[in-house]
Amino acid sequence: MKLFNTAAGLIVTDDRFSIKEHIQDRSQETTLLKKRKDIQKAPLEDYHKLLPQLKDQKFFPHFRENCISLSTALIRDSASEDLFIDHAINNIYELDKTANMLVKRLREWYALYLPEISRAIPDHEAFVQVILEKDKSALLKELKLDAAQSMGAELKKEHINEIILLAKHIKSIYELRNEHLAYLESVLKIYTPNLNELCGTTIAAKLIEHAGGLKRLALLPSSTVQLLGAEKALFRHLTRKSRPPKHGLIINHPFITAASKQNKGKASRALADKISMCARLDYFHGEFKAREYKKELEERFP
Amino acid sequence: MKLFNTAAGLIVTDDRFSIKEHIQDRSQETTLLKKRKDIQKAPLEDYHKLLPQLKDQKFFPHFRENCISLSTALIRDSASEDLFIDHAINNIYELDKTANMLVKRLREWYALYLPEISRAIPDHEAFVQVILEKDKSALLKELKLDAAQSMGAELKKEHINEIILLAKHIKSIYELRNEHLAYLESVLKIYTPNLNELCGTTIAAKLIEHAGGLKRLALLPSSTVQLLGAEKALFRHLTRKSRPPKHGLIINHPFITAASKQNKGKASRALADKISMCARLDYFHGEFKAREYKKELEERFP
Repeated sequence: MKLFNTAAGLIVTDDRFSIKEHIQDRSQETTLLKKRKDIQKAPLEDYHKLLPQLKDQKFFPHFRENCISLSTALIRDSASEDLFIDHAINNIYELDKTANMLVKRLREWYALYLPEISRAIPDHEAFVQVILEKDKSALLKELKLDAAQSMGAELKKEHINEIILLAKHIKSIYELRNEHLAYLESVLKIYTPNLNELCGTTIAAKLIEHAGGLKRLALLPSSTVQLLGAEKALFRHLTRKSRPPKHGLIINHPFITAASKQNKGKASRALADKISMCARLDYFHGEFKAREYKKELEERFP
Repeated sequence: MKLFNTAAGLIVTDDRFSIKEHIQDRSQETTLLKKRKDIQKAPLEDYHKLLPQLKDQKFFPHFRENCISLSTALIRDSASEDLFIDHAINNIYELDKTANMLVKRLREWYALYLPEISRAIPDHEAFVQVILEKDKSALLKELKLDAAQSMGAELKKEHINEIILLAKHIKSIYELRNEHLAYLESVLKIYTPNLNELCGTTIAAKLIEHAGGLKRLALLPSSTVQLLGAEKALFRHLTRKSRPPKHGLIINHPFITAASKQNKGKASRALADKISMCARLDYFHGEFKAREYKKELEERFP
């Protein structure tokens, strides 16, 4: 019966291959045997005899059960840092979008009460903070207006209350976002210390999410890494001969934003190069070299 | 100088008309004079002499100042229940959208930990509540599974913590939404008691928001009220001869959802009729008749 386990494992791990092919390629079997010490290895020629017997009513229910429990175990094992990073960064992105949308609503709503303050504080987070901390008279004093000059109406407390509740909610979105970001950083610092050091948490996480895992990011050529996230522009270039994109997700890296206009292409090529190297160092558990790379880049593009 | 005030008011309240037209139509002036007791009424023929003088450098700065202060006052006075309703219902709509989006993320994220529970509880709000209240072992017991059977991985506390934070946030969205809804109901109960009674808070608020205020809703023909929110389908009907829509925003009214398929058109026509009457009663401060109307409708379409 132990042999069936092995066979089941082979069928389950990759159903693109027929059983016959698996007999030639035993790499997956080896992995499985390492994980489950209770399984014995079957001699190669025995599979031919054993597998047809699985159709037998006597063995089939047990075979099926083993298949399912192995699938379950494999799904369970698939929860990895890649997925945590994926979820966290996507959630941060979603929260950002939500916060921006709700702040716009808040600004409009608050404008019934005191429209001048919205124009005076363009930063969203600061705006939310200010209207939570100060009441109308304090804000008017700050704006050097008296109530008769303001375009805002005197609202009843019940109406203002709703606006303040919304502002509090938006503040809690910002807090959750920061919390997620701190979590992401703690995960990345252990999982990909080089990439995290070189790119910062947000860009590193986005690169991993976009490539579909650290393994894939490590295996991509650096020219692809340079354009990750600029697929649309790239295909526009390929099909309609528009100008090729210079950078994808890395556009927000402080190193690229600081580069002069004619240097942007060169700088992003050099950065993508280092990113690839960092991803490979991290994936194959190499040394910590990101700081050196960073210095190199800074020296080349001052 | 007081005369200038009046003139300024006339120019400000409605800049589509030239001053000359205003001299004929003095209704706006009358409104203004009622509001501001400090303004004296000028004899009609004096405008001709006065208005050209406003270009004079001696009078112009003061004239301009008065214009601005009157505009400000008019903007301030424009904050009305219509706007509060508009903001609150739009915000509820936005929060609903956000909550749905984030719950989907939460389900996926939580699926790394315990995927079986997401399928077991299809209701979003209940799902959030359950994962906040119970830990994994309790949930597994409820699902009658042991940990080895589950497809969920055993996660470290730091990873689970982020998921729980997201769940808490989503719960706070639901709470804010309910808070807004309660506020909206309290506003509507005073502002449009008939409409609120007949349609319920959400639909009443949406109708007012969509029509652009209670006044406009009251003045619309009931056939338009019936199709408010179904503009796309209506124009598809008019331009491309598809079948005409039967109902717009009122489609979610319990009275329409309960009607049989061949009665839906008739029922929504009758409902829209009553909605128009309620809106008019509310706008012109009539009696409270919504309950009678409701009974009538229930008798006609049992």
